[in-house]
Amino acid sequence: MKEKNAAGRTVETTIAGKTYKPFSIAKKHSWSSKVTSLPDALKKCGLKDGLTLSFHHQLRNGDFVLNMTLEEARNLGVKNLMTAQTAMFNVHNPVIEFIQDGVINRIEGSVNGVVGDYISNNPLPYPVVLRSHGGRWAAVKKGEIHIDIAVIAASAADVRGNATGILGENAFGPISYSEVDAMHADHVIVVTDNIVDYPCKFQEIQERYVDYVAEVDRIGDPNKIVSGTTKITEDPMKLQIARGCVDLMDAAGIIRNDMVFQSGAGGISLAAMKYLGELLEEKNIVASCATGGLTKLIIDIYKSGHVKHLYYSQVFDDYSVDFVKDTLEMPADIGHYADPTSKGRTIDGLDTVVLGATEVDVNFNVNVNTHSDGRLLHGIGGHQDTAAGASLAIISCPVFRKTNPIVLENVTTITTPGSVVDAIVTNEGIAINPKRKDLIEKVRDKLDIVPIEELKNMAYDATGGPQKLEFTDELVGITKWFDGTVLDAIWKVKRN
Amino acid sequence: MKEKNAAGRTVETTIAGKTYKPFSIAKKHSWSSKVTSLPDALKKCGLKDGLTLSFHHQLRNGDFVLNMTLEEARNLGVKNLMTAQTAMFNVHNPVIEFIQDGVINRIEGSVNGVVGDYISNNPLPYPVVLRSHGGRWAAVKKGEIHIDIAVIAASAADVRGNATGILGENAFGPISYSEVDAMHADHVIVVTDNIVDYPCKFQEIQERYVDYVAEVDRIGDPNKIVSGTTKITEDPMKLQIARGCVDLMDAAGIIRNDMVFQSGAGGISLAAMKYLGELLEEKNIVASCATGGLTKLIIDIYKSGHVKHLYYSQVFDDYSVDFVKDTLEMPADIGHYADPTSKGRTIDGLDTVVLGATEVDVNFNVNVNTHSDGRLLHGIGGHQDTAAGASLAIISCPVFRKTNPIVLENVTTITTPGSVVDAIVTNEGIAINPKRKDLIEKVRDKLDIVPIEELKNMAYDATGGPQKLEFTDELVGITKWFDGTVLDAIWKVKRN
Repeated sequence: MKEKNAAGRTVETTIAGKTYKPFSIAKKHSWSSKVTSLPDALKKCGLKDGLTLSFHHQLRNGDFVLNMTLEEARNLGVKNLMTAQTAMFNVHNPVIEFIQDGVINRIEGSVNGVVGDYISNNPLPYPVVLRSHGGRWAAVKKGEIHIDIAVIAASAADVRGNATGILGENAFGPISYSEVDAMHADHVIVVTDNIVDYPCKFQEIQERYVDYVAEVDRIGDPNKIVSGTTKITEDPMKLQIARGCVDLMDAAGIIRNDMVFQSGAGGISLAAMKYLGELLEEKNIVASCATGGLTKLIIDIYKSGHVKHLYYSQVFDDYSVDFVKDTLEMPADIGHYADPTSKGRTIDGLDTVVLGATEVDVNFNVNVNTHSDGRLLHGIGGHQDTAAGASLAIISCPVFRKTNPIVLENVTTITTPGSVVDAIVTNEGIAINPKRKDLIEKVRDKLDIVPIEELKNMAYDATGGPQKLEFTDELVGITKWFDGTVLDAIWKVKRN
Repeated sequence: MKEKNAAGRTVETTIAGKTYKPFSIAKKHSWSSKVTSLPDALKKCGLKDGLTLSFHHQLRNGDFVLNMTLEEARNLGVKNLMTAQTAMFNVHNPVIEFIQDGVINRIEGSVNGVVGDYISNNPLPYPVVLRSHGGRWAAVKKGEIHIDIAVIAASAADVRGNATGILGENAFGPISYSEVDAMHADHVIVVTDNIVDYPCKFQEIQERYVDYVAEVDRIGDPNKIVSGTTKITEDPMKLQIARGCVDLMDAAGIIRNDMVFQSGAGGISLAAMKYLGELLEEKNIVASCATGGLTKLIIDIYKSGHVKHLYYSQVFDDYSVDFVKDTLEMPADIGHYADPTSKGRTIDGLDTVVLGATEVDVNFNVNVNTHSDGRLLHGIGGHQDTAAGASLAIISCPVFRKTNPIVLENVTTITTPGSVVDAIVTNEGIAINPKRKDLIEKVRDKLDIVPIEELKNMAYDATGGPQKLEFTDELVGITKWFDGTVLDAIWKVKRN
């Protein structure tokens, strides 16, 4: 079939069985500023009852954006929203009120602190769905979470929507969690208090994905976004555990040129990194790269030449925020870092990672979500992702805390299954997963290995054992493995 | 429904009408080197008759990768492939043989030079489909082109597939065309002659998308990949046209602080950039950004402080290749630059672009694809994309070349419709699209404007008019507007 098109040319509309549309119109593409107010942006994105809004947590306990967005939703009379944040903190205390007011009735994302505490006692009509960083990325990519409006906080953005977390007074480091939201959400709003000249010099989020730039007074409180300094713990017990982690790495033979390690910002983990850095220096070893969160401590190792590359997904202190502005070292977003549906995650190459725990059990299952009283107080973060990625996944924790045993017969909630946990380093010795015969073989002559049951017994002897929890049939939340399957259920505990 | 999962926990499989899969297994994720030979990679990616292979053209006339891939396909006895390259050059002369041997029978992508010449006389069973840079990106994104195997040349890659064009002896600048292929192809092969330590320092292509890294002796001839230097034309006529382009910009009032302009590498376009740079200096104006291809000339303007940002998608000379290794200025890939299905293209903000033409007509239609003898010898490139994006899209060309009129009654092939072309600057004067009354108003007192018909008449007087072509009913190719509709058909010309 031939047809005359709008350019006056006669063209075929069917060629070899394929249909072709004739040209109809060519117009100039122009652009106009995407800057507006937050309520206007929400209205233009069609905010209405029952939608899903996503947020990242990189403003941490200094975040104003999640609260102000829900406040605008309440002002607009909207109900029954789902939030799909990467995490909530104590600063999100007003969320309790938004739940009570019916503004939100579903949460898929981490609920740390006060919000988790509230929901533990007042479950939502739908359980909170907890996923790891990589698991969440995959869920958004696959459509398991459908985001109607992605609300992305940025410390700088231009009027066309290119946005970063690297520049500005409220800089928090590269926006690492939100590209997948930007790519898959129906609508995207960048929220910033800092409109910069086009084009924004860094742009983890690019204009191609952005509908509106909502300008607000302040996205957050800079004193609570990143910590001023990286403080290493001075608690002798924690230092002892940290030392044990590095001793184990050394005995396992992984402290060698081109090693890849995960740097964390937790107390014991950070101290372990300090000891690791000292050992790299002492042995004159050059690691290949450090993944995870960036701190002054890690940058110092980098500057000393003992790690070649920084593959950071987050930035934890002022020093690191300044550093990334001027460096060519690339951030690795969460998809690069941990998407389990990809053809390669940076953390698959981890030689080792040091992770924390609220509880561990004799099957090496780890809990980081609930406390021993059953309250849901923490997210999964990168725990599952890195444990599965690291050749030597080390859990560091004391045998007991106050009156609570930490090494248990059964963890209250499974965050990370024992099958991907290699060793548990405590103040009373190191337990190695019996499945890791190769590892036991390697280290047995260099280190004292303690059976995990022995650590559990010590914990029970010192504390009288775990408190007995009585569960109701109300579902508070579920933990998912990063492949999307359900690992565990968190039930409401009957309280007196 | 409650079910006991593989972690021993009892979990709900249906919650609020949604189905949840119980956890079944957690395994360590490991990685192994993706490095193999090219034939092995092709076999493992399931190469077979009828598949579509994609390539980028950033090794330009120095490219070995397209030819060697098709050679391997021939060795494997594979037939009827489609190639979806971003462009072919004279170096791809062997493609003629691959066509004759039946290895390929379909091409969707630019065919510059010898291959285009051959197909013009020997059409394939399917017409060559020509798209602009942005149109191709959108076609891959939307699935209009389905890529079975993306073959991505890289001047450096690590064993896990992170790859760049910025580093190495055969560096050609950031890989700008292939991310969309990497994201949407069923299989992805990075081809390199330079395996570097993990992680590759730049990584326009990330391991998350890559199946195999094919190591080859040489990906190309560095002398033909980028030019040694940026030479400005010394042809007085071309310089005169270039000067006219800048005079027009000046008269139109767009040479002002924060202007955005496209830098090209063509003869007249480059000379125009030189004059523009001088004028920015003279008037002490600071432009916002320069988009497009990077050359020493543009970098000099940047270093002089007269353009704040370089938003480059390609790198054209040795000097620029060296420059991008050490700069924090970001490359903008083709999706950012020109994807018409995005929520914002960098080029939508272009104040002006200077483009070339093989022919223009009295309706301001432009042809860059075919010559006046009807042979298909060039691709569309960014012509359509930037013309539609720029407020002032300038076509620069002489009124005639040798015995061929360039300004015509009707172009042989429509590449870019007149509705997005604002002005034609020739050695015999400047014609402005009559639809642009505002522009005519602005410049009429400052410049001599010539009716386009007058330029056509000059061309016809000097040459005796265009050669009369007699077309057959064999379809050589089609040009598409970047929205996917068919602009024009290229028919085989009857030759004596």
